[in-house]
Amino acid sequence: MAIVLGSNRYGKAENRVVRIYRDTGRHTIRDLNVSTALRGDFARAHTDGDQADVLPTDTQKNTAFAYAKEVGIASPEEYAVALGTRLLEAAPRATGAQVRVEEYAWDRIPVGEDDQGDGGGHDHSFVRRGTEVRTCVVTVEGRGDGREVQVLSGMEDLVVLKSTGSEFRGFLKDRYTTLEETTDRVLATSLTARWRWAGAHVLDGGTDMDAGYASVRQTLLSTFATTYSRALQETLYAMGRAVLETHQQIAEIRFSAPNKHHVLYDLERFGLDNDGEVFLADDRPYGLIEASVLRDDAPDAGSAWTDVRAFL
Amino acid sequence: MAIVLGSNRYGKAENRVVRIYRDTGRHTIRDLNVSTALRGDFARAHTDGDQADVLPTDTQKNTAFAYAKEVGIASPEEYAVALGTRLLEAAPRATGAQVRVEEYAWDRIPVGEDDQGDGGGHDHSFVRRGTEVRTCVVTVEGRGDGREVQVLSGMEDLVVLKSTGSEFRGFLKDRYTTLEETTDRVLATSLTARWRWAGAHVLDGGTDMDAGYASVRQTLLSTFATTYSRALQETLYAMGRAVLETHQQIAEIRFSAPNKHHVLYDLERFGLDNDGEVFLADDRPYGLIEASVLRDDAPDAGSAWTDVRAFL
Amino acid sequence: MAIVLGSNRYGKAENRVVRIYRDTGRHTIRDLNVSTALRGDFARAHTDGDQADVLPTDTQKNTAFAYAKEVGIASPEEYAVALGTRLLEAAPRATGAQVRVEEYAWDRIPVGEDDQGDGGGHDHSFVRRGTEVRTCVVTVEGRGDGREVQVLSGMEDLVVLKSTGSEFRGFLKDRYTTLEETTDRVLATSLTARWRWAGAHVLDGGTDMDAGYASVRQTLLSTFATTYSRALQETLYAMGRAVLETHQQIAEIRFSAPNKHHVLYDLERFGLDNDGEVFLADDRPYGLIEASVLRDDAPDAGSAWTDVRAFL
Amino acid sequence: MAIVLGSNRYGKAENRVVRIYRDTGRHTIRDLNVSTALRGDFARAHTDGDQADVLPTDTQKNTAFAYAKEVGIASPEEYAVALGTRLLEAAPRATGAQVRVEEYAWDRIPVGEDDQGDGGGHDHSFVRRGTEVRTCVVTVEGRGDGREVQVLSGMEDLVVLKSTGSEFRGFLKDRYTTLEETTDRVLATSLTARWRWAGAHVLDGGTDMDAGYASVRQTLLSTFATTYSRALQETLYAMGRAVLETHQQIAEIRFSAPNKHHVLYDLERFGLDNDGEVFLADDRPYGLIEASVLRDDAPDAGSAWTDVRAFL
Repeated sequence: MAIVLGSNRYGKAENRVVRIYRDTGRHTIRDLNVSTALRGDFARAHTDGDQADVLPTDTQKNTAFAYAKEVGIASPEEYAVALGTRLLEAAPRATGAQVRVEEYAWDRIPVGEDDQGDGGGHDHSFVRRGTEVRTCVVTVEGRGDGREVQVLSGMEDLVVLKSTGSEFRGFLKDRYTTLEETTDRVLATSLTARWRWAGAHVLDGGTDMDAGYASVRQTLLSTFATTYSRALQETLYAMGRAVLETHQQIAEIRFSAPNKHHVLYDLERFGLDNDGEVFLADDRPYGLIEASVLRDDAPDAGSAWTDVRAFL
Repeated sequence: MAIVLGSNRYGKAENRVVRIYRDTGRHTIRDLNVSTALRGDFARAHTDGDQADVLPTDTQKNTAFAYAKEVGIASPEEYAVALGTRLLEAAPRATGAQVRVEEYAWDRIPVGEDDQGDGGGHDHSFVRRGTEVRTCVVTVEGRGDGREVQVLSGMEDLVVLKSTGSEFRGFLKDRYTTLEETTDRVLATSLTARWRWAGAHVLDGGTDMDAGYASVRQTLLSTFATTYSRALQETLYAMGRAVLETHQQIAEIRFSAPNKHHVLYDLERFGLDNDGEVFLADDRPYGLIEASVLRDDAPDAGSAWTDVRAFL
Repeated sequence: MAIVLGSNRYGKAENRVVRIYRDTGRHTIRDLNVSTALRGDFARAHTDGDQADVLPTDTQKNTAFAYAKEVGIASPEEYAVALGTRLLEAAPRATGAQVRVEEYAWDRIPVGEDDQGDGGGHDHSFVRRGTEVRTCVVTVEGRGDGREVQVLSGMEDLVVLKSTGSEFRGFLKDRYTTLEETTDRVLATSLTARWRWAGAHVLDGGTDMDAGYASVRQTLLSTFATTYSRALQETLYAMGRAVLETHQQIAEIRFSAPNKHHVLYDLERFGLDNDGEVFLADDRPYGLIEASVLRDDAPDAGSAWTDVRAFL
Repeated sequence: MAIVLGSNRYGKAENRVVRIYRDTGRHTIRDLNVSTALRGDFARAHTDGDQADVLPTDTQKNTAFAYAKEVGIASPEEYAVALGTRLLEAAPRATGAQVRVEEYAWDRIPVGEDDQGDGGGHDHSFVRRGTEVRTCVVTVEGRGDGREVQVLSGMEDLVVLKSTGSEFRGFLKDRYTTLEETTDRVLATSLTARWRWAGAHVLDGGTDMDAGYASVRQTLLSTFATTYSRALQETLYAMGRAVLETHQQIAEIRFSAPNKHHVLYDLERFGLDNDGEVFLADDRPYGLIEASVLRDDAPDAGSAWTDVRAFL
């Protein structure tokens, strides 16, 4: 019997990289939170304190900021692929690089009568959109021609609610079951989703990642809105299925969805009706529903999901 | 010398009241976080443990939910005035009631080609808007004809950024000053503001509080966008002045604005230009600028600001 | 009628100053979060964008760090007085300086059989204590001989719980009251307290501020533990009274105490007794009880409480 | 090609279960945050909206509270095994149950001269300890004699700091490297660790899980304190190795450790020395070092780590 080093990785987390494009007077902004990690043979650093193979996390930080200028941020995914590729080149003992990005969206501030539309808004003043956070996780393995790239895109905290069109009944019961069946309830969740692109070649031209994100987001929202829900599980499955049906380049999608309970407040005690009108929005506990939907011929995921929080 | 009870108050904080209007198939939603507090002569509860004068915080909670049905939520301000008035009536030894409300906004989920406009979106499915939180603080003192009402409206965490049009120079220097002057920087803040309506009579017809909020918000945004900034102080003053000039019913406005520093990342070390393009968004420390703007003939604020966080 | 600038202040918030004393091999550590603010006549900065009177917040930050070395941190209070005095000297148009400090406590890591006692533990390795945060707010006005200093000490988030010895009954009832009276309940709170020292001269020798903090803390804890509670109000008053009775230099104390509800879980439905044994610890809403206790001959508070969050 | 349901699970998250033992006047308290999840064949709920196989999350909540009374909470691990076993029995289509627990520690309030020692303190008044959170994750698969149980114990946010005895040098350099080597720095982290017990039989008598936790914690702390650090990687490996050497029943341990940077503040600009005395504690970015240490003959982990956040 011996005691040995197992899996390990290291990097710089939460680099807050803000990139302004100011080539013309009409600026654009990309606002990212970037984390990097390297995997590989770093045993000497652990067992002997020898740093000769270790590219410092400080260097990874510098690279993250430098690449925001050198390669730019056409999309979080394209930036992450370039950054991961570079880090792997710079650290010969690394076998894999993972780059995780969160992006915060900004809207132009509307400043005139005709400024409410898509083309309007101020040239260099912005207001944070503040809804969901867009995410991506890119894994790069191998170098040069042997390079393998996996791309996950996703979102956190897309908060949605249906005020009707949701039921929950016909469920399994045991001696601890007290929940009453309902044919009309509020259904609300704060959705986290990640989807895997079938091949990194989506980045080689073909796919506009910003447009892809917007399209998946709209598919998720409209399916949530228009699907009658007999359980959050059914709703998630329908949302995942809709995304795969309409996006041939996506191989699978995973969801983590807290069921944010809205409890009908008992107003009968005060002589008042409450027919689905007044609710207490409860914090804890919450249901937590997690599911994945995939193509049965999806290409192998490789290391795409390694140490990625798919389920919470 | 004696030891005595000083100022005191008590109530129920953070009641998460959600009200759905479902009179037609096209639902609307008001999503509030409601806190109540009573002031007055509650000495016996403190010194003798005698609760005879104390309306329990649990009862205050029940009233907050019941009033969401009984009087409804035409606006946070109108609901808060009704709730505060009721609590004062129910607790004879109370001399003042304060109701604080935070409101979270929801948008209808767009579900079709023609659904992007104002009139569109799904009938009963919503997505959380997720930008700033709308607030109000209402103070009620006296009963019946002698009732005095003060109304503060406001917002928290309206996050805005200018990528140019901001400078900082000509400042006072001492032996600890190392900051360099700049004629072009990023200016960003997460704005908290509260404004006081000149009289509670704004609620008696005349003023549409939802429209008033939207109008103040747009005035703040467009002034931020279009004003060249020589300091955050100057920008805040301009924003406050613009609100007072365009809203005659507002007596004063107070701001608390963290200066969210965006530090130009030194890329020269890597042979790269960085002419205002790549920034590190820093967390702490941050500048904190706080200011109020008012009419010199503003009516007395009474208890409007008592125990209210105007400045952070 | 004119629109004018009202009260205002500015400074650098949340400077995370860590000071290691390493004069001997046995190090000590002071870990602070320091915020500064200057009040005074800064109208030109607001109305004209003229910064000539403005000592930059960046300079305030530098001073906060430099003073951790130059004057050191004998206690948060002494450091804050020195820093506030300096800032006022450096900004001629300022009329008042406020320095707010939060301190995080560290314990020495125990490393041997005989290391559990007060004198033990490692020389330079520490573990964060992690209970309440110690606070102070110091206000300095005037310069030289005319200098006036106010000192508030305090704590945030001292979380305490009684599993019995607490009741709540005999309260006022109205049509919305449904709460049942109880003669035995769990009482829990996360205490925020601030106390005002009768004169800043406490710092001129006489008072050891670290010992003073420890003594007030122990008085609060033991009074909470040993007082039968007929309401959280009564408990807070008893705690405040005990502090004033045992600390002659303290003029007043203010509390903000959320009543963290522990709801007895209904287990009868499953044929189980639950005689005060199993509770759901609820998040929101919570009662919020706020009170102050003072000497009737307390010296005037001056600006001690200006823009300080005494009540939440 | 078809679109299919992939892995999925569901449960009730963050049940705040508080259990008071009051068999004698000297109460004890266990304060837990409990999350449950069931895996198995729940396809019908997803694809057809049929809930016949679904034990509601509300029932899982009721069971979590009922079991705090029925089986009690001898330790988080024993409680979690019982709860997971029950949930699996109640849901025939489930193939695995996972129970995650966080425990918050409380100390008795000291109330007298002789109350500082281990046996002292108040009978029913407590103060939250507030350091790290103790955790466990228990996975149960199979029923009756075929039952397989995996037990992970751990902690979150054990915050430790060394003010010397740490260096970082000899590292790999590239064109983006600007970090200077150092032979003396502050090393600080907020440790998350999880360790896997070699067999669930540890619970069958033999092992006192509370004592086991205390022992692992002390081993981690004292190793951190007494090990000279040439990198956080080396420190983590030494800590893991020490735990495995002194605890034969532990098969492996995994760490996630942010390197909380303390940046030496440049005071030379003000004519002041700063020889390791004044630091800025930075928030973001931070290094993130993750590693596992295991026995090379450790028994198979089975589903112990499935959907568990080992690395952040």
